Amino acid sequence: MSLRFEISKIGHAARRATLHTPHGEVETPAFMPVGTAATVKGVPQDLLEQLDVQILLSNTYHLYLRPGIDQIRKLGGLHRFMSWPRAILTDSGGFQVFSLSDLRKVTEEGVTFRSHLDGSSHFLSPETATEAQIGLGADIIMAFDECTEYPADASRTRNSMEMTLRWAQRSKKYFEDHKHEVPWQSRQPSAVSHQEKTRFLDSGDESERGFISAARNDSFDKPEQTQALFGIIQGGMDHALRKESAERTIEIGFDGYAIGGLSVGEPRALTREIVESTIEHLPKDKPRYLMGVGTPEEIVEYSNLGIDMMDCVLPTRAARHGLLFTSEGKISIKQARYAGDERPLDPSCSCQVCRRYSRAYLRHLYASNEVLSQVLNTIHNLTYYLDTMRRVRHSI
Amino acid sequence: MSLRFEISKIGHAARRATLHTPHGEVETPAFMPVGTAATVKGVPQDLLEQLDVQILLSNTYHLYLRPGIDQIRKLGGLHRFMSWPRAILTDSGGFQVFSLSDLRKVTEEGVTFRSHLDGSSHFLSPETATEAQIGLGADIIMAFDECTEYPADASRTRNSMEMTLRWAQRSKKYFEDHKHEVPWQSRQPSAVSHQEKTRFLDSGDESERGFISAARNDSFDKPEQTQALFGIIQGGMDHALRKESAERTIEIGFDGYAIGGLSVGEPRALTREIVESTIEHLPKDKPRYLMGVGTPEEIVEYSNLGIDMMDCVLPTRAARHGLLFTSEGKISIKQARYAGDERPLDPSCSCQVCRRYSRAYLRHLYASNEVLSQVLNTIHNLTYYLDTMRRVRHSI
Repeated sequence: MSLRFEISKIGHAARRATLHTPHGEVETPAFMPVGTAATVKGVPQDLLEQLDVQILLSNTYHLYLRPGIDQIRKLGGLHRFMSWPRAILTDSGGFQVFSLSDLRKVTEEGVTFRSHLDGSSHFLSPETATEAQIGLGADIIMAFDECTEYPADASRTRNSMEMTLRWAQRSKKYFEDHKHEVPWQSRQPSAVSHQEKTRFLDSGDESERGFISAARNDSFDKPEQTQALFGIIQGGMDHALRKESAERTIEIGFDGYAIGGLSVGEPRALTREIVESTIEHLPKDKPRYLMGVGTPEEIVEYSNLGIDMMDCVLPTRAARHGLLFTSEGKISIKQARYAGDERPLDPSCSCQVCRRYSRAYLRHLYASNEVLSQVLNTIHNLTYYLDTMRRVRHSI
Repeated sequence: MSLRFEISKIGHAARRATLHTPHGEVETPAFMPVGTAATVKGVPQDLLEQLDVQILLSNTYHLYLRPGIDQIRKLGGLHRFMSWPRAILTDSGGFQVFSLSDLRKVTEEGVTFRSHLDGSSHFLSPETATEAQIGLGADIIMAFDECTEYPADASRTRNSMEMTLRWAQRSKKYFEDHKHEVPWQSRQPSAVSHQEKTRFLDSGDESERGFISAARNDSFDKPEQTQALFGIIQGGMDHALRKESAERTIEIGFDGYAIGGLSVGEPRALTREIVESTIEHLPKDKPRYLMGVGTPEEIVEYSNLGIDMMDCVLPTRAARHGLLFTSEGKISIKQARYAGDERPLDPSCSCQVCRRYSRAYLRHLYASNEVLSQVLNTIHNLTYYLDTMRRVRHSI
């Protein structure tokens, strides 16, 4: 069993549950902070642990280009590479290929694209994207899909949905044939620890080093388990196509189901409508993941509709632009009005930033283009999102 | 008494001592990390506390330009502004005026210069630099001096030294007349806490918030104490002038003495020679501060010559450029050879970076231009410097 989804409470449409992954439990509904390049920008992993982050999202596209999948596989997979012992989900890379790369060419086989970093040419398909995600070794990985653009006409939407279904089938097949190749398994404790033991013994602090060495093997290697693969529902803004996409994706059979192709420019009321109607067609006993949302209000709203997992760059990206979420509304810390403001950012927040620093200091850091600005702002915004989800879970 | 310097051990020329400041004790010999704009770039204050940083250096020039001295004074001084309850030393701004600003014009009265930020025109003199430092409220502040350039001929060196002596006298006079204006004193607990109490009571978490409020007043306000003013010895690379500068600076009378005008391009052997000969003329019972040095080897060397305090941007700036100090020598983490290197940066180091991350991950962060690279590299390099000083102190 790669993933167990245990629902403990149901309130109207919402569900409170625990997702048991090979790298720990995730309480849902959950917001997943985005760690694009194997780092949540500016925040050390021990701080993420202190914030009680239970699952991170990382982007296959970025890691595929740099440092490369082979590199991370050789280093024991993404958990070990970034020293994150808790759960990770990777996307398939498809969405970034569509949004970030140049000169992409989509065929039935897959997508040829140029790297946004150096212009080099690459090819991703259901098989290679799944291979990459097995190499990274996240706990939950995603089928390779085409995110249908908005707006799109009826025939374009159907064709795109049909291709996503064929790609889902191919992703599933590749996964079933290769899931044993996940780096947790190829790396037995005995294979690593001789060199490590030698080094640790040499370091003169045996007991402590020994502990770290053991902790490393225990936390990262899960020889008995495999990853979980999620399918992605497409179908644009068409209720009938969404229903059909859901039914046919479920027929292929996945460990969980994601709703893709939303937050692509459509009005928010439409997003909600599509989410609500799509959820009706999803199995009640599997996790439901709404990709790429949202604002603090939206993550509450979608949780109440029955969504279990969400991710969004908003809290981390907004933090870098000095936009902070508080219980009293949004604050743009760059404004001169905060230059002499001794109050904490959010008096109701107990994060280490609100406990220690004034708005005046945070404004100074932002105005001075200091790196600490990004670090502290990100810690606060993530706390705000995680606290919001804790409240949502308790309210169910 | 603003500063008590208590020597506990003397070994050859070196001394081990405790510097009692209004904001806590500093064990010497000490290395002071540089927090230019009221932040050690990228490192939150609680982490600096965990690293056991006991004193920080901050730059008057930068804070004078942004956010401005009045702003910091109104906010209760630098300790409160940046939420740093431990000791701080500020320089006078003189050195940065010489090294960073444009179009500076030096007269007997002081220095007119243009801001490196926006080209605006400013004037710093012994009086205004001391006023600024009183407004910031660091525990130790520096007389305004002219850093003699290298090389300089005999008459230029003497004239510059003579002006520094006159400026030292004026700095001292201004300080004695105004030292009661330090923001710790103008801000009695009763003046701040009404508003704070109201806010904290409103926040619904009385006990915890009350604790923070109390901690704030206790840590930052020191109504019975004043700052300490250090004089600066100049005299270029001339032993006789250094001796004369030392004797006449001591005659003016300061709480401690700094050796300035070194590390300005002269050969290292010459630096050492001048430090050694200058120390001979400094009082044994006052702290000696060597400004702007050095490498890990140099901070050991100068401590052994009898220096008590040092500061340098090297560990923090090198960290930002991926240059890391380890027990096995310097490592340039950008090199491709580290891309697959699973070892910790320094197997002998117990910092949170070496305990948790591999060289491969640190190399990836640097190559990807990730902010976490700067954060982690800085934590490691500061640990290396602070560990070095701990070893020096224990060896005395």
